[in-house]
Parts: sequence; C-alpha cells; structure tokens
Amino acid sequence: MNSEHLIVTDMGIDTHQEPVVYMRDDCHVCRAEGFDASSRVQLKAGGKTLIATLNVVDKKSFPRNHVGLSRIALTRLQVTSGAKVFIGHAPVVTSLHTLRKKIYGHALSDKEIGAIISDISEHRYSDIEIASFLSICAGSRLNTDEIIGLTRAMVEHGKRLSWPGNQQVFDKHSVGGLPGNRTSPLVVAIVSSAGLTIPKTSSRAITSPAGTADTMETLTNVNLPLADIQRVVSETGGCLVWGGGINLSPADDVLIRIERALNLDGEGQLIASVLSKKIAAGSTHAIIDIPVGDTAKVRTQADADRLAGLFTQVGNACGIHVRCIISDGSRPVGAGIGPVEEARDMLDVLQCFPHAPQDLRERALTLSAHLLDLAQQCGLESALQQATDILDSGRAWAQFQRIAEAQGGLKALPKARYHIIEKAHHSGTLQTIDNRKLARLAKLAGAPVDPAAGLRLHVNVGAYVDAGDPLFTLYAESPGEREYALSYYVENRDIFQIGGHNE
Amino acid sequence: MNSEHLIVTDMGIDTHQEPVVYMRDDCHVCRAEGFDASSRVQLKAGGKTLIATLNVVDKKSFPRNHVGLSRIALTRLQVTSGAKVFIGHAPVVTSLHTLRKKIYGHALSDKEIGAIISDISEHRYSDIEIASFLSICAGSRLNTDEIIGLTRAMVEHGKRLSWPGNQQVFDKHSVGGLPGNRTSPLVVAIVSSAGLTIPKTSSRAITSPAGTADTMETLTNVNLPLADIQRVVSETGGCLVWGGGINLSPADDVLIRIERALNLDGEGQLIASVLSKKIAAGSTHAIIDIPVGDTAKVRTQADADRLAGLFTQVGNACGIHVRCIISDGSRPVGAGIGPVEEARDMLDVLQCFPHAPQDLRERALTLSAHLLDLAQQCGLESALQQATDILDSGRAWAQFQRIAEAQGGLKALPKARYHIIEKAHHSGTLQTIDNRKLARLAKLAGAPVDPAAGLRLHVNVGAYVDAGDPLFTLYAESPGEREYALSYYVENRDIFQIGGHNE
Repeated sequence: MNSEHLIVTDMGIDTHQEPVVYMRDDCHVCRAEGFDASSRVQLKAGGKTLIATLNVVDKKSFPRNHVGLSRIALTRLQVTSGAKVFIGHAPVVTSLHTLRKKIYGHALSDKEIGAIISDISEHRYSDIEIASFLSICAGSRLNTDEIIGLTRAMVEHGKRLSWPGNQQVFDKHSVGGLPGNRTSPLVVAIVSSAGLTIPKTSSRAITSPAGTADTMETLTNVNLPLADIQRVVSETGGCLVWGGGINLSPADDVLIRIERALNLDGEGQLIASVLSKKIAAGSTHAIIDIPVGDTAKVRTQADADRLAGLFTQVGNACGIHVRCIISDGSRPVGAGIGPVEEARDMLDVLQCFPHAPQDLRERALTLSAHLLDLAQQCGLESALQQATDILDSGRAWAQFQRIAEAQGGLKALPKARYHIIEKAHHSGTLQTIDNRKLARLAKLAGAPVDPAAGLRLHVNVGAYVDAGDPLFTLYAESPGEREYALSYYVENRDIFQIGGHNE
Repeated sequence: MNSEHLIVTDMGIDTHQEPVVYMRDDCHVCRAEGFDASSRVQLKAGGKTLIATLNVVDKKSFPRNHVGLSRIALTRLQVTSGAKVFIGHAPVVTSLHTLRKKIYGHALSDKEIGAIISDISEHRYSDIEIASFLSICAGSRLNTDEIIGLTRAMVEHGKRLSWPGNQQVFDKHSVGGLPGNRTSPLVVAIVSSAGLTIPKTSSRAITSPAGTADTMETLTNVNLPLADIQRVVSETGGCLVWGGGINLSPADDVLIRIERALNLDGEGQLIASVLSKKIAAGSTHAIIDIPVGDTAKVRTQADADRLAGLFTQVGNACGIHVRCIISDGSRPVGAGIGPVEEARDMLDVLQCFPHAPQDLRERALTLSAHLLDLAQQCGLESALQQATDILDSGRAWAQFQRIAEAQGGLKALPKARYHIIEKAHHSGTLQTIDNRKLARLAKLAGAPVDPAAGLRLHVNVGAYVDAGDPLFTLYAESPGEREYALSYYVENRDIFQIGGHNE
C-alpha cells in the first residue's frame, strides 16, 4: 500500500456493480506502484477496503494528486469527493488458485469453497473471475458434497433470520422457466390464512421476464428493512418482500448478477442459491416446484427426479425439510407475462373472477395443499379441500390485502405506454408454445426493468385458433423496445405452432 | 438502431481492451432505446460497427447530444471527437447459446465452434462472455474433434502467410511453465545457418514472466510489418518477430488476454492456439517441446504423452507435420528469468562463453537437431553433430546478429533500477525449486511489463549451498514491486528446499 494519499474525485460514472478507479497516466503513485490500465488495485479509506479495476485517464481529467472513483466504488468505500484514500496492488486472491484444481477434475473441499464464497461476498473477485467460477461449476459439474459445501458457505456468509415463537417456518420456491407461473403470492395468502408462518422473501428476475419480487412490487412495497418484515409477519403470519434488500445472501446476489449477464445456470448453483436463501430466511420446511417440459428449465422427468433428489439430500444435510413437486412445464401458466400482467392474473385468481386463469388457480391450490399437509400431516386430499375453501370464501383475498396494507398499501396497476396486438396467420389447433422464446420476447419488450412491459396471451396450448384471431398483445414503454421485440418475433415464428405450421 | 445520431466525445479514458461507451442519464436516445448501465450497445459510424458496454454518466460530463467513447472504442470504431455515430441495442449474439449446450455435456460441432470464433474475432463478445467460454472449455473439456474444429476456426479467421519458393517451412514451440527455457532464438540461429527456412513468430508472455517476443524485444525490434518480415526471411532464412503485430490469429489474441487475466489454461485452447498460429504462419513442420515436472505446466509423463498425441493428431488433421519432444521440466533452465535476464543467458550461449548456462545450450542443440532431422532425414546423431558445429564455430552467433540487424539492429541490454540479493538461510543440497512459484515471484517483481525486472539464480537444483551464499538476485523498476515480490518470497519459503528445509 503506497504511503502517499490521493484525493477522491467523483467521476459521475455509473459502472454498475464493478468498481472502477481512474488514475492519471502521469500519477506518481501509479508509476511508483507499477500499475497499468486493467490492473487490480486496492483502496483504503477510514478502515474500509475496496478492490477495483484501474482505468487510466488523460491528465486533464482531474488535478494532479487526485484519483477518480465510479459510483459503486464511492458507495462501497463509503467516501465522497475530497476524501483521502491510499492505493496499492490488490492482494493475491488465493482462493482463485483452487479454481484450477476444479478445472482439472478435482472436487473442491468445504474449506476451499468457503474461501471462494468468502472472497466473493467481500467483493474481491472481478466480474471475469466470477464468470469463470460460475462457468467452471455450471451444468452438473458440482458433485453432491460440493453443492452441500456451497450451500453451507453461502449461509455462513449471509444473515440468519429467526422467528421467535415459531417452531415451524414455511417457504416455497419454483425452479422457473415457465412464464407466468406466479404462484407464491397466492400460496402465501392461502396458507397464512390457515395459520402457517410463511415469511416469503423473493428475488427479482434472474433470466426470466419477472421475479416474484418484481411482480409484487407492482402491487405494494417490497423493499422493507428487517424490522418491518418482522412486524408484517407477526401481524399477518406472512409477507411478500424482496430478499435482496435485507442482504440475506450477499454472495448469492453477486453470483446471480453474473449468471444473469451470461444467461448461465447449473444445478449446483441453483440448489445452493435457493436453499441458502431459505435457510438464511429461517425456514424449517420448503416446497420446491419443478415444472418439466421441452422448453421449460428442466426438460425431462429424469432430470427433474435427479434435481428433486439433490434438493432433498442437500436440504437434509443443511437442516431444512424439503419436499419437491414435479409439475407440468409444457406451456405458459396464466395469460400475463411480465410483472404487471402477472399481477393482474394473480388479483383475478384471488378475487375468484370467472375469467381468472384456471391453471394458475389450480397450481396455487396444489402447492398450498402440500404446505398445509407438511404442517398438519392431514393428507393431501384434506389439505386441498382446506385450501380451496380458503380461496373460494374470499379469506385468501382478504389476507392478501392485509399483507399488502401491512407492507405499505395496495397500489393500482399501471398500463404500458405502447402496445401491439399480434394475430394468428394460420387456422388450427395451437399445438405448442416455446416457453423459452416467449420469455425472451417478453424481456426484449422491456420486462422486468419496465414493470408494465411484457405480453398477454389470448390463447394457450390446445385451443383452436382462426387466422386473424388475436394471439397475444405485446406491451412496451419505448418504441425502440417494441420494435426490438417485434423483430425478434418475426425472426422466431416457431414460438407458436398452429395446425402444424410455424406462425 | 436509433435514427438520431450523437456526437462523439473522447473521454480520455483507457479501458484497456474492453470498449466502453458513456451516455448521459438524461440522454433522449438512451431513454428511447431503453438502455441502462451495463447494457450492451452497438455503435455505427461510416460503415464500421462496434459492440460496447454502456456506462451512464452525470449530465455535466459532456453536452446534451454527445456520447463518450473510451480509447479502445475510438480506435475500433475509427472515429475521433466530433464524429457522428448511431447507437442501438447490441444484436443478440447467437453463438453464445451454444455455450449452454457445451455446459450440459454436448460436444460442439465445427459449425458452432466456427460461429463462436467468428464472433470473438469480430469483438462481439464481452470480457465476461469470453471468460465463460474459456472456463467452459478449460482443462480437458474439449474432445479431439472439438480441438480440431477450434484450430481450423482460428486459422479461418486469421491471416495465412506463405513463403514462395520454400516447400518446407519450419517452426518450434515450447509448452512452457519452465522459467528461463528460452531456446527459440538459439534454435532459429542454428538451423537457419544450416539453410532451413524458419520464420519464427512468437507471443508475448501469457502467464509467464517472459515470452520469446518479450525477450527478443530487449535485443532488437520485433514489431515488424509483414513486408519487413518477408524481407528478413528472404535475406537470412529466419526471423524472430512478434506475431501479435501482424494479427495472425485475432481470435487467439483475444482469448489469450482473458486467459492471462484469469491465469487459466486448457489443453484444447493450448493446442488450438499453438497450431493455429503455426499454420497461419505458413509452417509445414513444427517441433513442440513439452517439459514435464512436478511444478511445470505438464506434471506427469502420462499427461505429456496425452498432450503429444493430441498435438500430433490435430496437426495431421489440419495439415501440419508435428513432432513432440518430451523433456525434463523439474527445474528452471539457465539462470535468468524475465526478458533481459533471459536475453543475457542467450547471448552467453551464442558466444560460447564458459559461464553460459550449459542446460540452455544443450536443450537448444537437441531441439535444433530434431528440426535438422525433420528437414534432412539424416538421423538424430548426425543432426546433433551438425548443430553443435554450427554453434561452436560461431556461425550461429553471426547468424543471430545478421537476423537482428535485418530486423533493425542489435540493442544493448539495460539493467533494472533496483535489485536485492537473497541469501540462503540453511546449508545443504538445493533439492527442489518450485517452478510455478519462482515464475510468480519474477512476475511480481515486474516481469515482463518491465523487461529488466525478474531474477537471476545463482544456484540450481543439485548444487550444494552454504548458509549465507547468494541464492538469487531480484530485479525491479519500482520500490513497490520490489517490496511486493519480497513479501511473496517471505510468505513462500518453500520455493527453495535446501537440505530438507524450506528456505
């Protein structure tokens, strides 16, 4: 660490999550330390440390003894313009060497995984190092012990919530890949009505057009501090909040950001991510919904069984009771895809409107029944009846509103600025919808960054369609995104297959 | 692509090789297109296209209808301040989807690999996408067909040199991991004296303290344009130039940069990188030296045999005759590590000085003999005698000087600004030296970025050492790097094992 300090300049540059430091090409500290553009450097200020990537700038950028910091660098180092910082080479990040071991086929030990997760939670890895770690461990490249090690390490480096007075705490997760499969808010409303404690924390979308947190955020406040979450749960038995705001699993948040940028996944990362967050949230029991289908995330029954087995095994090793439910993943659920459109479907189901999507209703009831059965050991049939009564009687809708009020109030749903209705070109039975491409289409339209963007299906698989009938409506907030999504649709006519033809 | 243009501002920021574009947070184009910080965007100007990462900046950074470009962005798009550019979303880079296929255990087809390499050569992949591709294919994760496919794709997307009037063109490569193993310049001098055509292009260091190009650059100009290279070869039969300057294999240059940042390698990438460059350079025959040892790159005889087999097989499939030589990789070669120190050793061998490192001399003669045998089919014994005569008679030294003159003149070697002599703490036989850690030590001292940085061994494995004898001298150009290297040495006393003790 160089003994001369430099003065911080706010560059006014948003480099997203990767901190960048800017030094003048004639900076004497730069020369003394032997830095060059793309060096990894370490900054110290007031007891805080930050590792960042160096960019080198022209002399005219700021005065001689200054150093520029990007927005995230200022935030992480907790400094503003004018502060004094010290700068030196970034220390060698030793856990990186164990990645080589993994590349050459050796399983990582608990200690090695712990060191990697520790470094990642402390922001010592650059984005390409995180990308490398994730890619090395992607697919099925982590064995069961490694997945257990990864889960435990992520729990160790995050928070641990507790719910005093509650011996059993329930949770739910859907593996995803099924557009519109927005069951969590319905399940939480139903089972908390029955007296179960279900403090549901959810993520924003990773690679999909909406996450539960994105969808709930269109209806109420989801970004609650821990004390408020605890208040909501003690008042209502449940909550529907964003987990990222309470930093349950900081390593997971870092990994998810890069997974999102790379559109990358892997069973080890999935299991560790899901279970570490459930354990961190203080849950004792969890239902994992695994939809299976040609264009869902999990493609075959065999893959689903394998994943279910791993989830249960890792859950046992880490102290959480896991029950996996394998469901149909062959077609989108509901009609809306994207935060606002999915919220619309949820409200329709809760209020038992006749036009509410029946498939979404049935899935929510099934999952709720499994949770009730886990809690009461009453058998699935009795549990399903109980869940149905709660929904049909209006108690679930009342409970949902109570939870939303406790979180800050129920909001009205907005409508997107632009929309366009796409019609069928052929007549016939709608035979298949490509879930993955449909999700991509909704994302290109702007979901979830624009909550009201996405699409609404007017038909689903199995329906008979006449040429000229509306297939779906696309919603977007900018002409650029609308056109971008449409050009993708035009190039991907196989999203909908009608009467044996691509659309 | 948005139809409104923006005016380029040179941000004066060096973002190394990853182009960055800066837009104001209130920029109307930014809003219309739906961009946010870290979006991938595409710029168009005068027929050129560039994909870059977006950073968002404060309004005060530049005028309203402007867009900032980092140095590499300006270079790649071939624009300067004031130019008009158009900006839109980066097109979906479809070859990225095949990476998922590879993650899930499916081999990549020639066509898929071709598409990936095409996109990488055209700079469409972000650094994290390249990191992901490399990590997915690292270790032994590419099968033989994929390695052949990768080699062919890299040849296809690079240059192809030819040497009219030369039916046989010779080349050489050492797999590396052995500090100080700088044989190429010696081999080129010896065999071109014997009339072989050996237009040797070399790289700069990837993960080592010096590459052949770094070492040669301390003695002469290595950055020659193609026409000059052809002149040097027609005048002397050989050359010792930097391959990166003539862009033989653009995809390889991109991959190497990220491999370097991640300290990552893999047999598939190694073979494809080496052979694609040899083929691009127009070589018909190549010797590949594979040093084997506990702390070399290749650890066991079995690994070496496997690698040698793959090299030969892939070479055959791609039209180049490859002969692999497995050599001893248990200890550093010569005494110098780092560009200038290795150049010193080379000059000592060429001039047949008594203090010249004999191990370096012998390796150079052996490799030269193999090349002479490939060319003349005369048998190894005869070839070795021929090579020895050429060296001892001074013809190799005369030839080396002739080549250096043709390339621009022979330079005097500099000395580093700072040095420190480390002495032995124990007495006894020097039993082992950890090659990998020794190389890292030289790098921390500043090699190869500072050509005169590195170290010079005063003893090698097998020698008897008294406590207090000099072990090595460390060279650095800044106090920061000297201290940084020393603190690594202090924490890694097992680099040298003397009389059964760590140093």
